[in-house]
Amino acid sequence: MFVSDCLQVNGQGHLTIGGVDSVALAQQYGTPLYVMDEGQIRENCRKYRQSFEKYYQGHGIAAYASKAFCCKAICNIMKEEQMGLDVVSGGELYTAMSVGFPADRIYFHGNNKTPQELLEALDYGVGHIVVDNLAELELLNQLACSQKKQASIQLRIKPGVDAHTHSFIRTGQIDSKFGFALETGEALAAVKEALALPNIELKGLHCHIGSQIFEIAPFEHTARIMLDFLAEIRTQTGAELKELNLGGGFGIQYLPSEHPAGYDSYMEKVSQVVKESCAENNFPMPFITLEPGRSIVGSAGITLYTVGAVKVIPNIRTYVSVDGGMGDNPRYALYQSRYHALVANKAAEPASMQVTIAGKCCESGDLIGEGIPVQPVQTGDILAVLSTGAYNYSMASNYNRIPRPAVVMVKDGASRIVVQRETFEQITQNDLL
Amino acid sequence: MFVSDCLQVNGQGHLTIGGVDSVALAQQYGTPLYVMDEGQIRENCRKYRQSFEKYYQGHGIAAYASKAFCCKAICNIMKEEQMGLDVVSGGELYTAMSVGFPADRIYFHGNNKTPQELLEALDYGVGHIVVDNLAELELLNQLACSQKKQASIQLRIKPGVDAHTHSFIRTGQIDSKFGFALETGEALAAVKEALALPNIELKGLHCHIGSQIFEIAPFEHTARIMLDFLAEIRTQTGAELKELNLGGGFGIQYLPSEHPAGYDSYMEKVSQVVKESCAENNFPMPFITLEPGRSIVGSAGITLYTVGAVKVIPNIRTYVSVDGGMGDNPRYALYQSRYHALVANKAAEPASMQVTIAGKCCESGDLIGEGIPVQPVQTGDILAVLSTGAYNYSMASNYNRIPRPAVVMVKDGASRIVVQRETFEQITQNDLL
Repeated sequence: MFVSDCLQVNGQGHLTIGGVDSVALAQQYGTPLYVMDEGQIRENCRKYRQSFEKYYQGHGIAAYASKAFCCKAICNIMKEEQMGLDVVSGGELYTAMSVGFPADRIYFHGNNKTPQELLEALDYGVGHIVVDNLAELELLNQLACSQKKQASIQLRIKPGVDAHTHSFIRTGQIDSKFGFALETGEALAAVKEALALPNIELKGLHCHIGSQIFEIAPFEHTARIMLDFLAEIRTQTGAELKELNLGGGFGIQYLPSEHPAGYDSYMEKVSQVVKESCAENNFPMPFITLEPGRSIVGSAGITLYTVGAVKVIPNIRTYVSVDGGMGDNPRYALYQSRYHALVANKAAEPASMQVTIAGKCCESGDLIGEGIPVQPVQTGDILAVLSTGAYNYSMASNYNRIPRPAVVMVKDGASRIVVQRETFEQITQNDLL
Repeated sequence: MFVSDCLQVNGQGHLTIGGVDSVALAQQYGTPLYVMDEGQIRENCRKYRQSFEKYYQGHGIAAYASKAFCCKAICNIMKEEQMGLDVVSGGELYTAMSVGFPADRIYFHGNNKTPQELLEALDYGVGHIVVDNLAELELLNQLACSQKKQASIQLRIKPGVDAHTHSFIRTGQIDSKFGFALETGEALAAVKEALALPNIELKGLHCHIGSQIFEIAPFEHTARIMLDFLAEIRTQTGAELKELNLGGGFGIQYLPSEHPAGYDSYMEKVSQVVKESCAENNFPMPFITLEPGRSIVGSAGITLYTVGAVKVIPNIRTYVSVDGGMGDNPRYALYQSRYHALVANKAAEPASMQVTIAGKCCESGDLIGEGIPVQPVQTGDILAVLSTGAYNYSMASNYNRIPRPAVVMVKDGASRIVVQRETFEQITQNDLL
């Protein structure tokens, strides 16, 4: 009915998530409130696992990109679902290790890891440090030597694929802060150096072509490029790398009009390309890693707001102000990202109004969206914004010193808090005179 | 020499702020680090106070817009400098009251204050609740009645002035989520209702035409419109309102090529308009409030980063990665705001390179700026980004679970921490399983 399978309407005409009445959740926990369906998240993990089994003999793993939504509970769920985990900072690594996430299934990313972060990664025994540049490669070798350790790494390669998405979330082309360029010979030089460094174990290659991609062709194209590069590395150095990390970027549905490809068809087609390329090059099938973030949690989450002022500006637009905004969801301000929304307590009614959803921040650009069709809305209604599971809580700020909302998970008809609502005391806890 | 008077270069060729060596600050407190010059902030406050005295018989006040940078220390400084204070949320109000800021000098803004926030404002005795819309006006009257109090208010008016700035920070025109439109009669109707409500004391009017405005003419134009409206209100209702709040929006220098008007010329010209309009309308000179935020703290602050990877992409650009990014300064990602930067430990050298400053977040759009001229930069250098005192710390997030930097204030050659650096423990403190 909506953009996610976990959303329905109950007999009272209320929006439900994971079978739980969203209006009751707003009453119980207050608003603004992030709500995530744990069942949907676990189901998404299983879809990835099953497609690996079905199309690639299980010779691979999906590593959840925790930057999409990171907290102890989600790391624990990923542990239980036998997923891998991407982290991109010491803070995400700390969160993962605090729930005992197996370090060998962690992939540590970043274009500018600090020496401290690299030491932490070595100390925890992170299974895959994804090295971005030569300075990092050499620093990591030194640090590993000083710790008498071998650093297990992948090298981040720019395959030169342009996946036609918003320029701010496009990372595969040569003009990127991330990785080694293939076409300039930089990537091959890095491989040779990594193979030569005594405290570096080069396990494989990584690439990532962008975010929120709907077509499969760019992924197929990228897989072929990377397989050809693996074969070239063998020719040039004799080294037969065992791992290929194809990154993330799988699009999700934000609007009813959008239709991303399913994971299944992705894995079917990409594994076909991998198998063909391996056969052509007589190269053993690599262990494949995928790094889905948004597609695991994005459509499993919604945000509930209480509607405050409704301001009709004749012949221009209607502003519906909610009790959150760019502080809890900066994606419209950042990328003009579009969302579907509905009045949770009138979810069965037709969406007969078109509104601009405004936040409560003291800033004109504090909008959640413009021209959004919703049910007739008035002060006191509960407004649900859909597909907010990814890059909402994780990007939230305390702009205007507004506390960040709580995150509630629903599962089997029950709900629990997984991130508590911030307090004023916490917002000021680091203030000194 | 740079974009702010508080910045100089010492004998070692290091950038200084408020007379303190910035490289030494980076070593002492670590990076990334926000540094603010308290002397410059206090001087900016005094400039506003003095221009009120010089041009308007001291019959007015500058209220610092704390959304620009809010913490206990800055509220305390504003208290000591006898400034007023703008707050836009319960969190900012809480911060102000925690240092005993005089409530009668507080202006409480916002397009969607919650009932709880309005109750807190009544409870603290906030001197000016700036009411945004009719629903809020009626709610506030009810709440004040229930508390047996009079709510002292100003009404936020949209004067219909377009101040030619970025659309996301332009708030005076009719298509805005803020305030009552003048031209539709909405504003006059609100005034009449406010005058009629028993628990509302209407003290005056507020307006705000935008942010980072360089010209004085829009402010003069707005002052005239508002004075004419005050006279019309007297004609229509007999009420002679005593207060006129002309908001903020005074531009600051981010780049050497920018030359905003000084506060002095602002006050000189605007007070002239006010006096003329009052004389024409035979209206008593109102008590004027201005709401500067950026112009108090913006150019008094810098951010210090340690340079990590330097990535030269031949014929395209050079990425200089720093140990912070959009988490501590989201303004380039949000508005493509431009900053001036320099290598703090080579500040006396010519800026012979052009670079893109990239953050460490796992996101291509995580940039501080593009095409920025800097001194020859290499790994380990300290990079200073200038004019970051406003809307940097206040808009900071924990994206990628990166801790927010500390804020250090320098004064009379000494330094102290006013906001402590976040810890991993704090980032995870609200996480439950």
